Amino acid sequence: MNYAGKRVLVTGGLGFIGSNLAVRLARDGARVTIIDSAVPGCGANWHNLTPCLTQISVIKDDICALFAHRKAIEGTEIVFNMAGEISHVNSMRDPVRDLQLNTTSQLCFLLALREICPGIRVVYASTRQVYGVPQFLPINESHPINPIDFNGIHKHAAASYHRLLTASGDIDASILRLTNIYGPRMALNIPEQGVLGHFFRRALLGQDIELFGDGKQVRDPVYVDDIVEAFLLAGARKGLPSPNMNVGGRDALSLEEIARILVAEGAGQLVYRPFPEGHKSIDIGSFSTDNSFIRETLGWEPRVPFASGARLTLAYYREHREHYLP
Amino acid sequence: MNYAGKRVLVTGGLGFIGSNLAVRLARDGARVTIIDSAVPGCGANWHNLTPCLTQISVIKDDICALFAHRKAIEGTEIVFNMAGEISHVNSMRDPVRDLQLNTTSQLCFLLALREICPGIRVVYASTRQVYGVPQFLPINESHPINPIDFNGIHKHAAASYHRLLTASGDIDASILRLTNIYGPRMALNIPEQGVLGHFFRRALLGQDIELFGDGKQVRDPVYVDDIVEAFLLAGARKGLPSPNMNVGGRDALSLEEIARILVAEGAGQLVYRPFPEGHKSIDIGSFSTDNSFIRETLGWEPRVPFASGARLTLAYYREHREHYLP
Repeated sequence: MNYAGKRVLVTGGLGFIGSNLAVRLARDGARVTIIDSAVPGCGANWHNLTPCLTQISVIKDDICALFAHRKAIEGTEIVFNMAGEISHVNSMRDPVRDLQLNTTSQLCFLLALREICPGIRVVYASTRQVYGVPQFLPINESHPINPIDFNGIHKHAAASYHRLLTASGDIDASILRLTNIYGPRMALNIPEQGVLGHFFRRALLGQDIELFGDGKQVRDPVYVDDIVEAFLLAGARKGLPSPNMNVGGRDALSLEEIARILVAEGAGQLVYRPFPEGHKSIDIGSFSTDNSFIRETLGWEPRVPFASGARLTLAYYREHREHYLP
Repeated sequence: MNYAGKRVLVTGGLGFIGSNLAVRLARDGARVTIIDSAVPGCGANWHNLTPCLTQISVIKDDICALFAHRKAIEGTEIVFNMAGEISHVNSMRDPVRDLQLNTTSQLCFLLALREICPGIRVVYASTRQVYGVPQFLPINESHPINPIDFNGIHKHAAASYHRLLTASGDIDASILRLTNIYGPRMALNIPEQGVLGHFFRRALLGQDIELFGDGKQVRDPVYVDDIVEAFLLAGARKGLPSPNMNVGGRDALSLEEIARILVAEGAGQLVYRPFPEGHKSIDIGSFSTDNSFIRETLGWEPRVPFASGARLTLAYYREHREHYLP
């Protein structure tokens, strides 16, 4: 896995996972181009690229406008396709916007990409949300797809485009279904982006952490460096036997256990609250990932325990606080 | 199941199945409104409504413009949601158009509908195409969803909207996954609309019928009157235990057997051809439907054998030929 000199494109590269990946690639000597429209609310933050900004070329545009940047894109060898909106809340509030960002833009992007870079290797960032309420745990890639929000429906349609265009030989895509990710460069001022960002924000501010219900719902958070490693491993391979790949499963911790670790790192107290009206119907209960396919296929291994990752994350935000909590 | 006096809305009611349903509803005394944009290539034909045109109110507009027709829609009791593009070929040629017709329009329609008619009963016309290549036969509703074309991806996203908005109580939808349907009012001059319309056209013209490969691929065609019955049964019920329902499974016939029946009814000869280049990769092989769920839940029973249905179909087109083969 040697990215030195490789021409790579990172869509959504100003966002959380995309920027961590772009910075790592630049440090490894890759020639990195980012395309990102910096839609408000999706986590784009120029500060995320600070360590390597001069080494990375950034196209500030929607991915659906790829043809307009044909010259800059030609010759790309690998695409890491991270662009999109991940907010469950926003997707329920404005499903048409979510459709545009997650499905329509992706379709136009891929149709342009197959013209400009036929057969290209693509690694797409999908989500565990496509599974909906778990019918068994841990969830493997054969679990039924039953998203319980618009975001999941739209991300899954985009994943299906990747699968379809891979079957037809137009591109060569892998689809990584990501569990809850945390780490440096996550947006802390967008509560809709998920429970972990919200928890870290409160830890950073020394505030209490609220748990809904009994807090026993399990998650399997993964530190962003481990996720970046999964993308790098997937990007370096071609023609994998199956496009879908779960990425998760380091630790299975209850939200209460996660919150307790953050209390030890500076948050206030745990506060238990009843589920708000209507929220329970969209609660998926516990979630944990069967990651045996990616372990066996790519040799991936999530290395960072949550307690260590939490410490690294808070150290980053304490140093760069003004860029994440302005 | 009594539709007399009921206010029903049929989207896509100028098309094949929609018009058969609308005519039947009007004859049963329902107060029928159609909304149909008559997009070229989707099978809309004003002649389809001839027997009952004066009893049916037609809004010629895209379903996504529902709010503009709020006054006409208020008070609707049941929606039969048949609007969409069914062509595999067109969806591969212009996936963005297919996304607009089958997904974006449906999303806007349903978001408007939940405002105008909260909790309303909706029966959505989905398709066996969402299953993709069968992993087992006959296919039941638990079969994995793996559409192998853009049409299937987009129809499935729209079906997922129905499922999601039913789970949240905004509407009360059933999703009928239809097998190959044939009968009066099918478009004969749009070859992209499927193999059966194409076969009937050739039978009507006394032309030879081409079979690709050995013609042994099985289908389970259903006569449109049986399909109309399934929609009427589903529309008359509320709160079914599961939204997805296969509709098919009267006869399992090979394409060769289907073609032989049409030869007996006036087509020329059978002609065997090799699969055209690139076609084999999107061939799903044989298909047959496990319809036990709809049988048990609604008491539905497909009654018309293919040979009888074929005769009825050809008789209709011989009488109305100038409206279908201009």
